[in-house]
Amino acid sequence: MDDDLFGLTNLPYGVYSVAGSTPRVGTRLGGQVIDLATLLGDTVFAAPTLNPFMAQGRERWDAVRAAMIAALTDGVPHRGAYPLADVALHLPFEVADYVDFYASEQHASNLGRLFRPDNPDPLMPNWKHLPVSYTGRAGSIVVSGTDIVRPRGQRLPVGGTTPEYGPALRLDIEAEIGFVVGVGNPMGSSISAADVADHIFGLMLFNDWSARDIQAWEYAPLGPHLGKSFASTVSPWVVPLAALDAARIPTPEQKPEPIAYLHMDEPWGLDIDLEIEWNGDAISRPPYASTYWSPAQMLAHLTANGAPTRTGDLFASGTVSGPTKDQVGSLIERGEGFLADGDEIVIRATAPGADGTRIGFGEARGRIAPSPIGARP
Amino acid sequence: MDDDLFGLTNLPYGVYSVAGSTPRVGTRLGGQVIDLATLLGDTVFAAPTLNPFMAQGRERWDAVRAAMIAALTDGVPHRGAYPLADVALHLPFEVADYVDFYASEQHASNLGRLFRPDNPDPLMPNWKHLPVSYTGRAGSIVVSGTDIVRPRGQRLPVGGTTPEYGPALRLDIEAEIGFVVGVGNPMGSSISAADVADHIFGLMLFNDWSARDIQAWEYAPLGPHLGKSFASTVSPWVVPLAALDAARIPTPEQKPEPIAYLHMDEPWGLDIDLEIEWNGDAISRPPYASTYWSPAQMLAHLTANGAPTRTGDLFASGTVSGPTKDQVGSLIERGEGFLADGDEIVIRATAPGADGTRIGFGEARGRIAPSPIGARP
Repeated sequence: MDDDLFGLTNLPYGVYSVAGSTPRVGTRLGGQVIDLATLLGDTVFAAPTLNPFMAQGRERWDAVRAAMIAALTDGVPHRGAYPLADVALHLPFEVADYVDFYASEQHASNLGRLFRPDNPDPLMPNWKHLPVSYTGRAGSIVVSGTDIVRPRGQRLPVGGTTPEYGPALRLDIEAEIGFVVGVGNPMGSSISAADVADHIFGLMLFNDWSARDIQAWEYAPLGPHLGKSFASTVSPWVVPLAALDAARIPTPEQKPEPIAYLHMDEPWGLDIDLEIEWNGDAISRPPYASTYWSPAQMLAHLTANGAPTRTGDLFASGTVSGPTKDQVGSLIERGEGFLADGDEIVIRATAPGADGTRIGFGEARGRIAPSPIGARP
Repeated sequence: MDDDLFGLTNLPYGVYSVAGSTPRVGTRLGGQVIDLATLLGDTVFAAPTLNPFMAQGRERWDAVRAAMIAALTDGVPHRGAYPLADVALHLPFEVADYVDFYASEQHASNLGRLFRPDNPDPLMPNWKHLPVSYTGRAGSIVVSGTDIVRPRGQRLPVGGTTPEYGPALRLDIEAEIGFVVGVGNPMGSSISAADVADHIFGLMLFNDWSARDIQAWEYAPLGPHLGKSFASTVSPWVVPLAALDAARIPTPEQKPEPIAYLHMDEPWGLDIDLEIEWNGDAISRPPYASTYWSPAQMLAHLTANGAPTRTGDLFASGTVSGPTKDQVGSLIERGEGFLADGDEIVIRATAPGADGTRIGFGEARGRIAPSPIGARP
């Protein structure tokens, strides 16, 4: 089943270890993890992170991908291959800076209605002119399978004006797509939307866990902080951008016409289907295809002021929500309650791959551990 | 003059290099930079950043400080000492995550009046309950002396509703105090305000360059981003928290009483006097002593939700502004114009040291280089 989504047209990168040895870079073929330093005889893959390889640039990424496909065409090699069940998977790269966007029109509209019910337009005046975003905490990004300790913080009691401190009562998820920068740009320069494939190394699943009660009290005027900084989960496999050529589709129509540095003759999104599972039940299927701002526009915007990016910079789409209730990417939009202790969320995704195949992103999984302080009412 | 501020009661840490050799950790005594690996025979100081030493913890920080004082009491050593003019000073540590607070009541009130003129109270309802803050870009933090390229970005023309893209026209400074975390806390735990001296390694000057026109258009609802992400400047010398015992003073009265995790029986601030020089003219003397939220409260808040901190995490106070116009820490508050190309800003500071001395922070200096695109009107 899932193994079919990891054929020769996928070949994602991850960092794995087997008992008693240090983490190294591997790929996944079917149900096997393949050690890349062994397969390709290249010591850049003997590192415990993808960063050194990502920093080598697009020509190397393309050459290595071609070499992997050639080496694995006859199937799993005899040496350096391990059943998935026998390895531990680690955070695949060292995160430099992390930025979260807000690129889904449906999500931004849904949250605008909830957080600012008095505004006639759920979108802020800037929303269709720029991909709104904020910087988040890189140091609390963890790999799939890590327990998420329920955050605590200040929140207003219902109807009150004086905050209390205690475990978050409205603990939520945000199902997103994350992008990692392989090669950045120097300070003072900008990345053109046309050049992003030279900079974006690959994609992963991202869950931006969010404490809505903490966020609602803290966020004015400088944006969300402690409502999100406690943890975010990434999937362990980084799917190369090069594996997603067949998934490119036009973005939804962008009106008004974006300003010059965000203009693309044919802005492309990606036809990635997400699925959210809550305690084993599939509750939603957010379509990344519906996202307003494209990956290229997000990266162009990030650097439009001259800000540098670095190897390991991670930017995420923001919650992916489609127009219907069974397509929303967060529980607050769904309106049927928040996470209880012990609850488990799994985000999965697939997309079209080359040659009519489908490729998988694996999963971003997390279980809520109880807060160390305070009883949860 | 300045050399007097770097006596035995200061002994800050920095990273220097002399022509033809790699950067290493040094301290400053008077007008000399002293190589610490040579002075103390400890290879942790042969590194190009302070991070390995900072990670060793407070007992080691105290022991090394005592060893430096003992070794330097007879003056500058014969080996491994260089005149300040002969060395290059580098970014003193690798920045992990960077968070900027908004801890000065005068500054928050002044900006509230400017950005939200219709609100009767210039402070948001949350401001006196928690130290408001946001995460900023770590990868664009540069050391004093680095030119700052004028950022460009989207901003509304005066009276217009459709944004233009071009060089920032309202380029500003924010004079702040920065704090670096030496030893962090694991995910899920929190740092108590009483324990901050085990975690904060030292202090520096910080200039959070800000493009007010970009910021005003982008910041709702997720906070400032590209208006600040292009660059921030830190001073090269990290003054140990241990050097500032004599500078501890009570914070301004905190009313309402802060919630339990922010409560301190005797909240202490620091009596640091800043000075801002604009093209050689001293334009303002912001008193850090007037800052509402204390360093201990800022770090306790950062981790109050269970977020982890790491060696190299930098948090800054936010703009330091006193109550009078010659004490404000930003140009927007001063109201007499913004930065032109070629302008140079220098921030300096001094504080009481042990034994009746005064200690210096050196300087955070930056000159505005023209934008590579667009003419500046």
